[in-house]
Amino acid sequence: MLSLSLKEQQKGVATFSTGNHGIAVAYVAKQLGVRSIVCISSRVPKGKVNRLKQLGAEVIVVGDNQDDAEDYCYQLEREQGVSVIKPFDDLDIIAGQGTIGLEVMEQCPNIDEVIVPLSGGGLLSGIAYTLKSIESSIRVTGVTMEKSAVMHESLKQGHPVKMAESSTLADSLLGGIGPHNEYTFSLTQEYMDESLLLSEKAISEGVLFMMEHHKMVIEGAAGAGIGQLLLEESGDGRTVVVIVSGNNVDHETVRELIKTR
Amino acid sequence: MLSLSLKEQQKGVATFSTGNHGIAVAYVAKQLGVRSIVCISSRVPKGKVNRLKQLGAEVIVVGDNQDDAEDYCYQLEREQGVSVIKPFDDLDIIAGQGTIGLEVMEQCPNIDEVIVPLSGGGLLSGIAYTLKSIESSIRVTGVTMEKSAVMHESLKQGHPVKMAESSTLADSLLGGIGPHNEYTFSLTQEYMDESLLLSEKAISEGVLFMMEHHKMVIEGAAGAGIGQLLLEESGDGRTVVVIVSGNNVDHETVRELIKTR
Repeated sequence: MLSLSLKEQQKGVATFSTGNHGIAVAYVAKQLGVRSIVCISSRVPKGKVNRLKQLGAEVIVVGDNQDDAEDYCYQLEREQGVSVIKPFDDLDIIAGQGTIGLEVMEQCPNIDEVIVPLSGGGLLSGIAYTLKSIESSIRVTGVTMEKSAVMHESLKQGHPVKMAESSTLADSLLGGIGPHNEYTFSLTQEYMDESLLLSEKAISEGVLFMMEHHKMVIEGAAGAGIGQLLLEESGDGRTVVVIVSGNNVDHETVRELIKTR
Repeated sequence: MLSLSLKEQQKGVATFSTGNHGIAVAYVAKQLGVRSIVCISSRVPKGKVNRLKQLGAEVIVVGDNQDDAEDYCYQLEREQGVSVIKPFDDLDIIAGQGTIGLEVMEQCPNIDEVIVPLSGGGLLSGIAYTLKSIESSIRVTGVTMEKSAVMHESLKQGHPVKMAESSTLADSLLGGIGPHNEYTFSLTQEYMDESLLLSEKAISEGVLFMMEHHKMVIEGAAGAGIGQLLLEESGDGRTVVVIVSGNNVDHETVRELIKTR
């Protein structure tokens, strides 16, 4: 299924990502025996960096926000001829995320709403487009952290904006959407019904709930949707699906979270 | 599939267990709308007690070892007419555990060894009997904590013994095997190839490994087999299956464990 061009095979691939996309790229590159470079900001936590290195990726830390990492990634493309695998604003990535929508419909055909973590909008665009194509009444809600919610602010202002990044438990949701965003800005604008901002407390409650009740260790970005559900009044009878994606979280972070209990 | 006698329906069921058997009994009783009583010792951790109560069980704490809880359970049977559902020394329980052996063979037909947590021997007897009936060369290893390893000591002495219980991370593996053990003592004697005792450190390493690498929160009893694997030299090419069962563990315990990292 996976195939690379000759250039990709010879020169390798590079990406920039605060999220799990970098890990996916490193993983696939390893399977295919191809060089991979992942450019990240200094905000990417240690556990994720270790995972990338385990997978054989060359990890380059550039500045303290994803935009710097992105710029450096394209510099490598120009200088070394590596192929950049975009993390979200890419039709193949969006289509791939869309298959999650198909899985949701297969496992749970009568859903009323889906809650999706929102960062660059790749995950949300793919799922929203797929679900609404099948059943337009399904409500799509995006959830992200209060601080540095770039897509949320961009939609409010009607165009992609740049924002400084702040520390958050949902580190995978950090990062800009790119000043020349081609697809995810307009797809999110068209297909997302509501964008909600969550406090760090609400996100950590989501992570802790999954540990306590489902015995799963997940990262902040993945706990955001659960955190939102916990804030809502229950018992209205609607069927809500929450996308829980990503478990690259440090032991230290887990320990600090449990301490708050 | 599940059916209860009229007496069980009217008077309810009772059990004694340090492990997850009590939770299973409470769960099924709730599904069937039947009263359940679970007699436990004071060593059973809070998380497990809470889970039992959530499932609607009447929890009775008796003494500080499983033998006291067992005696009280049979007293309730005489006085109140409840039906005792034995935790391990019972042919239906052993046969039920045996289905795990069938699942193992289905998913992984060419195994060389299976590592099974050992307490009263119900889980091990069922799995060992099933696997060896299919392929007699499969090695069956029992793992338990160093302290209060009742089955291990009983096998050494050639008859069921009683031992005082000590605190351990693998609390589900505590408990006697019953002075009048009918099945599991002789089945374990016949079908287990080796019984290994694990330090608390090795057990906690197993639990932490599952959290770090599989993002699963498991209890000490479930981590014992993984702990044993981590002690062994790797790379001998054998296929070893480890039974990881039970995730009723307190947040406090998880926090303390992570602190040791």
